[in-house]
Amino acid sequence: MNQEKEKVAALPTIRRLPVYLRLLKELKSKGNLLVSGTYLAEKMGCEPIQVRKDLAATGTEGRPRLGFEIEKTIEAIEDFLGWNNTQDAFIIGIGSLGSALLGYKTFEHHNISIVAAFDNDPEKIGSIVHGKEIFDISKLAPLASRMHIQIGILTVPEFAAQMAAEYLVNSGIKGIWNFSPANLAVPADIVVQNEDLSSGLAVLCKRIKAKAEVNSERC
Amino acid sequence: MNQEKEKVAALPTIRRLPVYLRLLKELKSKGNLLVSGTYLAEKMGCEPIQVRKDLAATGTEGRPRLGFEIEKTIEAIEDFLGWNNTQDAFIIGIGSLGSALLGYKTFEHHNISIVAAFDNDPEKIGSIVHGKEIFDISKLAPLASRMHIQIGILTVPEFAAQMAAEYLVNSGIKGIWNFSPANLAVPADIVVQNEDLSSGLAVLCKRIKAKAEVNSERC
Repeated sequence: MNQEKEKVAALPTIRRLPVYLRLLKELKSKGNLLVSGTYLAEKMGCEPIQVRKDLAATGTEGRPRLGFEIEKTIEAIEDFLGWNNTQDAFIIGIGSLGSALLGYKTFEHHNISIVAAFDNDPEKIGSIVHGKEIFDISKLAPLASRMHIQIGILTVPEFAAQMAAEYLVNSGIKGIWNFSPANLAVPADIVVQNEDLSSGLAVLCKRIKAKAEVNSERC
Repeated sequence: MNQEKEKVAALPTIRRLPVYLRLLKELKSKGNLLVSGTYLAEKMGCEPIQVRKDLAATGTEGRPRLGFEIEKTIEAIEDFLGWNNTQDAFIIGIGSLGSALLGYKTFEHHNISIVAAFDNDPEKIGSIVHGKEIFDISKLAPLASRMHIQIGILTVPEFAAQMAAEYLVNSGIKGIWNFSPANLAVPADIVVQNEDLSSGLAVLCKRIKAKAEVNSERC
């Protein structure tokens, strides 16, 4: 099997799964039990074959003429992502992006809970942002090990990123969601997911450009 | 040629291009002319073959034993994304996420300039956020057509998203970067790029879970 190809194909699928999850939970809350692949495809803005492939990656299959069982599909996606239990996360760096993530309600729909926020700015420490108290960074390690935190979200400036990452590593977390442009050096057993908000904009701009060039088919 | 397969493969490549661009500009600013694929691969956290494939998509090839010409590669990526001229954007909805994007410095490195911000909250209109004045949403259409704005960034709550999108469409923009969970209905010639910040978190969680299960190879 071509491992590399599989990895490349899986990444967009994984990125789409939270969107399926949101749609499915919305349908469930309205009392629906089944949903057609065509409906999901329309809402996702992609082809029904893509929906089948995406959901097949989580081990779910639609039933002929009935569609996907909503409850089972939600469970399959949550199990696939490890979101079936609430995942607690810490966030470090409460500037404007950190504040925005603290207030980002969609995380809670996905059982992701940012349970504590940290900064090293004396003016921020002790203040409340989106209902969460900002703690001194020195409190991070004892709190993380006591609370068994697995995920650290880094929203510090580039110059502070490596040091903040080391605080997280020493506190026993397993993965870092890194919004800074820094290239973090961490032990091999820590997963680093680098996030650059410009990535989504690159896709948008490329699609606008492709449309202007072709001026015909829908992306 | 298998169009669908090509699209699936290209998406992660496009998402990585802004990161290459940042690395290349950093090297250029330090006076470098050439960079090896191995160096880029290490910084990107992927294999050299992936770097060659990613950059080949923009029409750039490395030179044997010399590597990639930095200046030419920057030009190729910017041309590929349509970032060779400054792209002006409007942003609607200056809550915490809108404010964070207004202050996101990386956009400027990519020639993306958020030139005006809009809201319908009288308490926000007229105030200054990250050096930009917040205008009344009613000013959007005349300003957009006068300034030939192509990109609208939507950071409004779900219930306000469709109406805000219609403001953007009527003002002549070509693409909408939609951070709301709303499924926007727009004319076929408008590109909508839906952004869910949970996507990056899904990838991180999946990688942590895969590591826990396999507990061997690096993702």
